Amino acid sequence: MSATMKDVAKEAGVALGTVSKVINNIPVGEEYKIKVERAIKKLGYEVDVYARGMKKQKTDTIALIIPNLLNPFFASFSYYLEFELSKHNLKLLLCNSDGNAEKEMRYINMAKQNKVDGIVGITYSDIEKEVSNNCRFVSIDRRFSNFNIPYVSSDNYKGGELAAKKLIETGCKNLAFIHTGSNVYRETYKRKLGFIDTCKNNGINYKLLELIEPHENIESACLKFFEENMSNGKLIIDGIFFSTDNLALIVKKIIESYGVSIPEDLSLIGYDGIKLVPELGYFVSSIRQPVDLMAEKCVEIMLSLINKKTVQEINYLPITFVEGGTTK
Amino acid sequence: MSATMKDVAKEAGVALGTVSKVINNIPVGEEYKIKVERAIKKLGYEVDVYARGMKKQKTDTIALIIPNLLNPFFASFSYYLEFELSKHNLKLLLCNSDGNAEKEMRYINMAKQNKVDGIVGITYSDIEKEVSNNCRFVSIDRRFSNFNIPYVSSDNYKGGELAAKKLIETGCKNLAFIHTGSNVYRETYKRKLGFIDTCKNNGINYKLLELIEPHENIESACLKFFEENMSNGKLIIDGIFFSTDNLALIVKKIIESYGVSIPEDLSLIGYDGIKLVPELGYFVSSIRQPVDLMAEKCVEIMLSLINKKTVQEINYLPITFVEGGTTK
Repeated sequence: MSATMKDVAKEAGVALGTVSKVINNIPVGEEYKIKVERAIKKLGYEVDVYARGMKKQKTDTIALIIPNLLNPFFASFSYYLEFELSKHNLKLLLCNSDGNAEKEMRYINMAKQNKVDGIVGITYSDIEKEVSNNCRFVSIDRRFSNFNIPYVSSDNYKGGELAAKKLIETGCKNLAFIHTGSNVYRETYKRKLGFIDTCKNNGINYKLLELIEPHENIESACLKFFEENMSNGKLIIDGIFFSTDNLALIVKKIIESYGVSIPEDLSLIGYDGIKLVPELGYFVSSIRQPVDLMAEKCVEIMLSLINKKTVQEINYLPITFVEGGTTK
Repeated sequence: MSATMKDVAKEAGVALGTVSKVINNIPVGEEYKIKVERAIKKLGYEVDVYARGMKKQKTDTIALIIPNLLNPFFASFSYYLEFELSKHNLKLLLCNSDGNAEKEMRYINMAKQNKVDGIVGITYSDIEKEVSNNCRFVSIDRRFSNFNIPYVSSDNYKGGELAAKKLIETGCKNLAFIHTGSNVYRETYKRKLGFIDTCKNNGINYKLLELIEPHENIESACLKFFEENMSNGKLIIDGIFFSTDNLALIVKKIIESYGVSIPEDLSLIGYDGIKLVPELGYFVSSIRQPVDLMAEKCVEIMLSLINKKTVQEINYLPITFVEGGTTK
């Protein structure tokens, strides 16, 4: 429990009005001022500037915690989130966490202290204990186990399913799923499950390659994987699904440098479906996340939380396949 | 002049402490409450929540106005700006303007009302009259004519110069500059000047193509331009400099679909030097803007403005050439 203005008055042995005056820089006797300031310091009382001034106890500001804007998926999500918030006269405070749990915590604490109305977070840090029901939090792609934190994601399972179906439909016989790993369980893990189940249901062979973040050398891991899947000097695998478009593009570059023709010899499907250049098409065939609808859903949930309405915990939004020249 | 708390007290005929109590939701007699609320309404008094609560009159928040995060250059700049601000415990409020001058004005007004400490703006809207010395404003790539607004940009003239030099050095004889236009004078116009001067100084032919934003069909304008510059069925132009990487990538796709080999038949150099996929190289050879240093410089200037130190108005930061496979 953080100290209130009443606690400060009690500690300082002054009237509540005196505390208010000191905080608002309204002249009071120097002696009272010193007493109040000492009490504020002792109790660690934080002036809740935002909540104080507004009768509705609102700052009209939502913080967004994302890994970083250099990743086009996160940049795109941030764009749509700010766009949707501004429709409701809400502002966006941006936090690039770069996986720094301490920085994430500063923003979560701001939400707890009502310095922002709530948080939308794409976070993989160990903050399970901190995100609780005492602040408004909408999670993207991560389900918190301890609390009923609402979360929004694309339909990852169906995305994996659709990728496998597309590869099979276009004649691929030997599939693979290449993904990056993390110690935190993510909803994105379901991309793998949907993919594997579809391969199994269709009697199609599949291989898996997990790249451990962030230190593994992707090139050497991929080359080792491809060497293990050669027969008579030819790659057996003819279709690969990747956990992200970025990963698909990185591996595409490696494979092409070895003279493999895409999509003639090998089809590739990524996940995200973000246009790297807004005016151009997709650089890789992909399972597109409806990033605009996801942002809209986050804002809808946040407004419900603010207005103390019940919200749905699990929110899956529909994926689609987009053509980017790496599938037949 | 906006109304102060004192004005409200005078208007309501109550003590200053009473106004403070009402604003802070501390119980006062209903009669007093009504009087104060009427006075607040009549005078249009706005509770300056941020400035009030903090003795230093600081919100520790800077607003960033950018066109939109879907453009990777703006996303990258936003990332580095937030990164630099957070080093100084400053937060970033994000505004994607999409060229909406009204939305930009909302943020500029926030700065005037001390609801943010200042603004960093990449804006092409007609806001000359609004951005004045009564709010802290650091401009990117645009020089305001009426006021001494500090601005930061890459060294656009030297960038144009370097692009022309690179093309000439690698054997190009007939150059072109293709750029998008806008009615607002931008510093980026100097890319063209540096390019033209270098062509002239080296006795090299050059052609210009201006694409009027936002409605012109880039493909048809480019095809017309190329047709006008053909001889015996072959394109005369062998080196093109573009005002942005995005434009270079769009035109590259058009040209390649007509069977022109890049860089064998035609060299291309863009401007920005942003990695579309952080883990991969550049998708086009480019003049790289030092986006990290530009963000750092903006924060340095903003801190000087906050601390009432003098700032340098013009801040050009050094560009470099980066290889992206579209130059020999």
